Parts: sequence; structure tokens; C-alpha cells
Amino acid sequence: MTHSLKPIEQHASFGGRQSVWQHHSTVTDTPMTFAVYQPPQAEKQKCPVLYYLSGLTCNHANVMEKGFVQAYAAQHGIIVVMPDSSPRPEDMADFAKEDQDWQIGTGAGFYLDAVRQPWARHWQMESYITKELPEIINTNFPVEPSRVGIFGHSMGGHGALTLALKNPGMYRSCSAFAPISSPMAADWTQKAFAAYLGEDKKDWRAYDACALIEDGAKFAEFLVDQGSADPFLEKGTMPGLLKEACNKAGIDLTLRMQQGYDHSYYFISSFMEDHLAWHAKRLD
Amino acid sequence: MTHSLKPIEQHASFGGRQSVWQHHSTVTDTPMTFAVYQPPQAEKQKCPVLYYLSGLTCNHANVMEKGFVQAYAAQHGIIVVMPDSSPRPEDMADFAKEDQDWQIGTGAGFYLDAVRQPWARHWQMESYITKELPEIINTNFPVEPSRVGIFGHSMGGHGALTLALKNPGMYRSCSAFAPISSPMAADWTQKAFAAYLGEDKKDWRAYDACALIEDGAKFAEFLVDQGSADPFLEKGTMPGLLKEACNKAGIDLTLRMQQGYDHSYYFISSFMEDHLAWHAKRLD
Repeated sequence: MTHSLKPIEQHASFGGRQSVWQHHSTVTDTPMTFAVYQPPQAEKQKCPVLYYLSGLTCNHANVMEKGFVQAYAAQHGIIVVMPDSSPRPEDMADFAKEDQDWQIGTGAGFYLDAVRQPWARHWQMESYITKELPEIINTNFPVEPSRVGIFGHSMGGHGALTLALKNPGMYRSCSAFAPISSPMAADWTQKAFAAYLGEDKKDWRAYDACALIEDGAKFAEFLVDQGSADPFLEKGTMPGLLKEACNKAGIDLTLRMQQGYDHSYYFISSFMEDHLAWHAKRLD
Repeated sequence: MTHSLKPIEQHASFGGRQSVWQHHSTVTDTPMTFAVYQPPQAEKQKCPVLYYLSGLTCNHANVMEKGFVQAYAAQHGIIVVMPDSSPRPEDMADFAKEDQDWQIGTGAGFYLDAVRQPWARHWQMESYITKELPEIINTNFPVEPSRVGIFGHSMGGHGALTLALKNPGMYRSCSAFAPISSPMAADWTQKAFAAYLGEDKKDWRAYDACALIEDGAKFAEFLVDQGSADPFLEKGTMPGLLKEACNKAGIDLTLRMQQGYDHSYYFISSFMEDHLAWHAKRLD
């Protein structure tokens, strides 16, 4: 074990185990916290693994507590990994001013590798999620490293879509709840993207699902649920842009508009069963 | 409508509606907050109603967010009412010192009517739960007032058991997650009971499930789940006392020791499906 994992909490849950761990991340150079749900099947055999990326302001605990994910992960025998949504440096002196804004800093990692200082020093979430964390998970938990899916909510839906598009072969399945379809177009991503990546929007294309698809990135199929009463629908998530990009590129997108649902975990939990079933079928 | 209900939040959830309301309670003489889950069936017909009483330190939100109750309430077409666990007076001057203790004051109503001052002025949770709140629910939500169940966790499990025993005919079904079986014996009830009811333990018997059963109170059957890894098992919940009292009185108690489970909502959510099914069968 190359990474020393510190246990934070552990609970029996739906016949399996819900645990939280902390470790020092070499890519973010901060402590990082993640949660893991191990279904009952994981006591006896290796299981497929599904990464859930959270939205703005969230950490590992939101989906762990409010997502209802354990019930369905236990049904399908899937291990679910729930990382934090950003590094949380112990010394925030360089970030304190911007961090007052919920759309930048802690809780706003956007699952990208920042190239501008001071952010680049710690905000390396793409490398964390695609390289360091899977190594830790594969070493310390009974997962089958070839059966990996990814999903997420809002900023984490953007993360799931972009990481799946950018890493062919890494993920067998990908879905999202109300993802930010195009950070270049959305109104709540401008400040963080400029701070992390610079003002030149050409450099943002590598972290924009629609731009990635336009530029030729492929993925077999996406499931996306979107609430019709989501207050961020028109200027934040903008599913029409994703639909258009997928249509043009021939990517199979199942986009479901869910009548009356908002952007909260009441929306997410209501469709968690469908998403776990979607992934289970593709990770089988 | 005799009570003016102020809407606090509302979300689509599992095809139904999760809402939170505030009103002025005449029995506690404070604002009171409660949550209601209305399943999809409630759009077209009246539904049975199930009251969930929360544990120490909790309010209406704990089970609403972490209990997974909506999934199963939607399945069975049951309206679930989730009240706060105590009054929260706007002027806490008279209570500030004791309220530092998590076992007394706000978050610690114990579902009883206090008779000692200063508590008696507001801490009237028995009357609130059995009289005022049902009136509000029956007037404002599509419930069938003859099909009512009650359940709860820990302090709220104690509340469910005692209110069911004390009010023949009011509840058709009753269950509990890790209830305090006997507040007279438990170590975490002593301070609040003395403050609310006085030092004479004879006066506590009306709020102790085991003492009520010894004194002749009846209820058809209880379902109780208890985690074997609950840190409060030996001095707090003490299910052996309830088992003994039910055995002696011929009350049908289904007591399930759940291996490895603790006292948290990970435990509660894991068995929520069973409890909703239990109530659904008896409220049918």
C-alpha cells in the first residue's frame, strides 16, 4: 500500500459497509477525503466500481447521506466511490479572498487540472480522479479495475462527461444528473475557469463536454436526467447544447426531462435507482 | 383552516412531493416546523398517514434527508409526517444554560408534556404530536384520519411506543428503530425527565414504555429493529427490558437484532423498507 489511508468513519449499511477515508494526495498536495460504499457482495468477490462526482459546494458526504445510493449499489453489487469535489488546503491564505465565492476554490474543483497560480499548486482534480484515486481504490478495495463507471451531479456531471470523453477505455459507463453541459457557455463557470485555466477560452475546450465532442472525442452512450424545474436549467446546465453536440457526433444520448424536479438531492435520489441499473448493465 | 401554514420548501421526490412547513403552535406557544412527504397516490386519493418521531438532537430534516423514506412511502402510497423533536422558543433566555446539554432542551422534547417550569411553558410535545399536529395534517393534507401509524428512532422510538400505548385506537401500527425502551432505566434520560416531570420517578411511569405495559397499557404488536453495534445499546436503548415487559404482558413484539449496525441513519435507512412494508400492511 503506497498510500496511507486514515479511517474517518464506518457504518453498516444495506448489508454492506459505508466508510470514509482520508489520505495525503501527492497530486493535490493536500489531505483528501473520500467515501466508499462496499455492497455485501464485496465481502466475497471483487465488484465493479462506480465513481460519483459531486456538485459545487459539496463534499464526499452529500451523496453518501442523501443520494440513496447504498440501497441500489447493494442490489447490483457495485462499489461506489465518492470523492470530495476539490482539494481543501490547510493553508488557505492565498485563496481566502476568492474562496468567499461558492463557484471558485474549495467545493469547486471542476474536475480539471489548473494551470494558473495560485490554483495550480493544489487544484489538480482531473489527475486526482483519473490517476491517483483509482490507484488507491484498486490497491485497497476489492474492485475489478476493468469494470469502472463514472457519474455525477451538476459540476460533477460535467466532470463525469468530460473525463469519460477524454479517457477512452477508462470508463465503461457514464451518466449524469443535471450536468453542466458546456462550461464555456454556462454562467456559473466563468470565474473559476478563467482563474484555473486562463482567460483564453481555447484552453477551456478540453474541459467542456460539448467542445470535446465537437473536437472528435467519443463515448458510446450517456444517460442524463434533468429536472424541468431546475433553477439552473437555462443558464447553468443547458442540456440542449449537449443534445445538439451528441446528435451531430452520433453519440447515443438518453436525455430525460423529469417534470417538476429541481436541482437538489431529492431529484438525484429519485432517479438513483435508474442510474445504478444503467451502470450495472454496462459493468456486468 | 385554523392554522396558518407557512411553506418553507418543496421538492418533487419519487413522483410525489416533499415539503416543509412552519406554523405557530398553540400548545407549545412557539413556531413549529414539520416536513411532509406526499406520495404520487396522494394526487388522486386520500392516503394513510405515518408519523415519524426523531431522536435526540434531530429536527424534521434528518429523516427527510437521510432516511430514504420517500422511496418506500411512494411504493406503498403512504403520507409521512416528520415533526421537529422539540419546540425551539425564540427567547431562550430561561433555557440557555441547560440547553448546552444535548439531552435536555431543544432537540430533546421526549414527546411528553412537561409539568415543571420553565419547561412546561413550551415543552408540550405529547399534546402537540397527538392533538394539534394531527388536526393540522387532517385539515391540510389528503390523509385518511382513521388509517394512522407511528414510528420513530431512539428518543422518537420511545415516543412512538409510549404514544401508541397511551392512546388506544389512535394508531393502527407502531414500530421503532433502536427505541429507548425505558427512560426510567436509561442513563441519557435522567436529567431531562427530572427537569420536565420532577424528581419523583412515579411520575415518569406515564412516559416509559415498559412501565406503561406493566401498568396495563396494551398495543397489538410492535416491530423493533436494534443494531448490535449501537454504542447506546447497554445503557440507552436496552431492548431486553422491552422484550421482558412485552413477554409478560402478552404483547406481540418482533425484536430484530441487526448484526453490526450502529445508531445512525445508515442503520435506519437500511431497514426503512421493512418498516414501511410493516405499516402499509396494517394501514391497508
